[in-house]
Amino acid sequence: MDAGLFQQTAHSPSYFELARRLGDGGRQLVDFCIPCNPYFPTPEMFDELSRNLEAVLKFYPSDADTIAAQLARVLGLNPATMAMSNGSTELITWMDHLWFTESVAIPIPTFGRWTDQPMETGKRVDMFPLREIDGFRLNVDHYLRFIRARRSKVAVLCNPNNPDGGYLPRREVIRFMDELADLDLVVIDESFIDFVDAERDPSVAMDAAIRPNVVVLKSLGKNFGLHGIRFGYLVANPGLAGTMRRTLPKWNLNSLAETVVYMLAEHGAEYRESLRLLARDRYTMGMHLAQLPELTVYSSQANFLLVKLSAAIDGTELRDYLISRHQLFIRECGNKLGMSNRFVRLVVRPQQDVARLVSAMHAYSHPQWEDELALRRNAARSA
Amino acid sequence: MDAGLFQQTAHSPSYFELARRLGDGGRQLVDFCIPCNPYFPTPEMFDELSRNLEAVLKFYPSDADTIAAQLARVLGLNPATMAMSNGSTELITWMDHLWFTESVAIPIPTFGRWTDQPMETGKRVDMFPLREIDGFRLNVDHYLRFIRARRSKVAVLCNPNNPDGGYLPRREVIRFMDELADLDLVVIDESFIDFVDAERDPSVAMDAAIRPNVVVLKSLGKNFGLHGIRFGYLVANPGLAGTMRRTLPKWNLNSLAETVVYMLAEHGAEYRESLRLLARDRYTMGMHLAQLPELTVYSSQANFLLVKLSAAIDGTELRDYLISRHQLFIRECGNKLGMSNRFVRLVVRPQQDVARLVSAMHAYSHPQWEDELALRRNAARSA
Repeated sequence: MDAGLFQQTAHSPSYFELARRLGDGGRQLVDFCIPCNPYFPTPEMFDELSRNLEAVLKFYPSDADTIAAQLARVLGLNPATMAMSNGSTELITWMDHLWFTESVAIPIPTFGRWTDQPMETGKRVDMFPLREIDGFRLNVDHYLRFIRARRSKVAVLCNPNNPDGGYLPRREVIRFMDELADLDLVVIDESFIDFVDAERDPSVAMDAAIRPNVVVLKSLGKNFGLHGIRFGYLVANPGLAGTMRRTLPKWNLNSLAETVVYMLAEHGAEYRESLRLLARDRYTMGMHLAQLPELTVYSSQANFLLVKLSAAIDGTELRDYLISRHQLFIRECGNKLGMSNRFVRLVVRPQQDVARLVSAMHAYSHPQWEDELALRRNAARSA
Repeated sequence: MDAGLFQQTAHSPSYFELARRLGDGGRQLVDFCIPCNPYFPTPEMFDELSRNLEAVLKFYPSDADTIAAQLARVLGLNPATMAMSNGSTELITWMDHLWFTESVAIPIPTFGRWTDQPMETGKRVDMFPLREIDGFRLNVDHYLRFIRARRSKVAVLCNPNNPDGGYLPRREVIRFMDELADLDLVVIDESFIDFVDAERDPSVAMDAAIRPNVVVLKSLGKNFGLHGIRFGYLVANPGLAGTMRRTLPKWNLNSLAETVVYMLAEHGAEYRESLRLLARDRYTMGMHLAQLPELTVYSSQANFLLVKLSAAIDGTELRDYLISRHQLFIRECGNKLGMSNRFVRLVVRPQQDVARLVSAMHAYSHPQWEDELALRRNAARSA
């Protein structure tokens, strides 16, 4: 295993890059790094996709407007208020080119593209640090005061936030938007909002559609656990949404994205059930991890948990230990602005995977138990 | 069947849109519209993709640089001279934003995005009409004179051209580039160049990499017959290629594109064989179609043939007849600039599909034979 793989970028190496390096060992890899939805799509849906794969891949997808019209039907949105994209990163890139003229405010830690994209094109990035002492919770009034002090032209708010999963109630987000009606743009990144179970209708998409300067970003890849497909969309008033639709490349969506959008209409019930199971797993996983004395677990409404390691543990060492000895892949946050390598982000996974992680963590803290653990594993395999 | 589907855009409706409207009838659809490669990927490659589909779709793809490095290894190119994209349309869109400042020259008929994209952003498009009387062959000297007369800042040349498949020898393309060394940009669109068998190394990619103002565009989707995946790339000098790489959205490639790029290394022989078979089919198909007195077939080096219908035939009617009576889907060129509905583009397909098309064309010209044909089909089915 080449640890250099981890040192290249603000983002983790891809699963494929890792699996290729691990070779056969890659097959047992349990991934706590990439925020998946382990319950969706269902195995039946993957079977359906596999059966039609040749036709799906051989033909051109429909253009984004046709696919967006179908997505609008499924989600009950007005297609004039939407623009579909090749992953939310494509939207971030084009928003930066179209609408970020000078400066952008963003709470950190955050998704790397929110800081890197505007910096790469020479914009000023006003970073508002969320504080460990507050459990990384965003205080809207403090953030508003910061935006005014910095005279930022654009403000971004991720809800839930990444990597901590902190959630701001809907009425707070609306207050935030309305206080900033004079800004060039207010972006609410709701990439992980489907995982929220703290209130019933957490999204502000409908509210954005009737405001002059608000864009809400959604990531179907993150919600459906299909990162490989690349699809996202924005919701905004028809003026903003139309400008984005006309600017994005035609045929920016691939045929699998199209196929999945059409499948969604028939699998809404399974999707809602997957969210219920995931919220249950999040709760149980948080409980189990919190029992380990070397971990502090932060409250999350997303499909991952931010965890702080005790001072005795180096996150980079732990990550390398877990991948090489236990084929467990975790996200160490040392290369994220506003974090350190004492933080790791753990994706919510089913109970058996969490049990494997807890044992491995235990073995790391008690190396003398490692042999015992290996014995038990072998016994379990031959049983 | 809703014929309105065909009237919306300069592009054809997608296969999926058609299949959805046709319902069960869609299963027998033979597609002469979308330029596929019927021999690649092989069924074994599709099996491999299907088996790994869940993992492929659930995880993030690697970033474009990682995937481009692998593609460069396979193709023997220098990665510093490449930028990979989500289909060649993404490159056309960004080239327009970055490098098309004022005016673009382009021979027509052509791929719709070459005229529509710059028009949509308010550039002047200098259209150089290829003439039917010349068999749509491009005369480089005439085109150069036109570019000088129009004082175009950017010039595009598609080789082979779409929809006629006309091919310009490599030395002519190099002469074209060198005559225009003072332009802002010269774009050579080689989307279909892998299908050329008129000379051994038709691409000018290596030549572009050492010139100040030349970009060569390639479309992996078109070459490999995988339009649904969306992947393309450009080759240019490291300055131009680097600017494009830094400007494109990160993670603009999906995981299937990544998987296929890694598979290519092991399937080069199958790919070359597929090109040989396709060139053979192109020759046979051209011969068979040329025997129909109502058709004029133009010489092509791409995976499609441009065909002119006799004055008695209306292309739109023929298309609607072929899809509704014979489940054959053809591209009528009436909505292409520089063409009329007396032209149709027919994708090169294996002999049995061509036989079905020839029978259907015959039945169209001799309606009294339609019943006879139906009898024969039923007899063949019950045999």
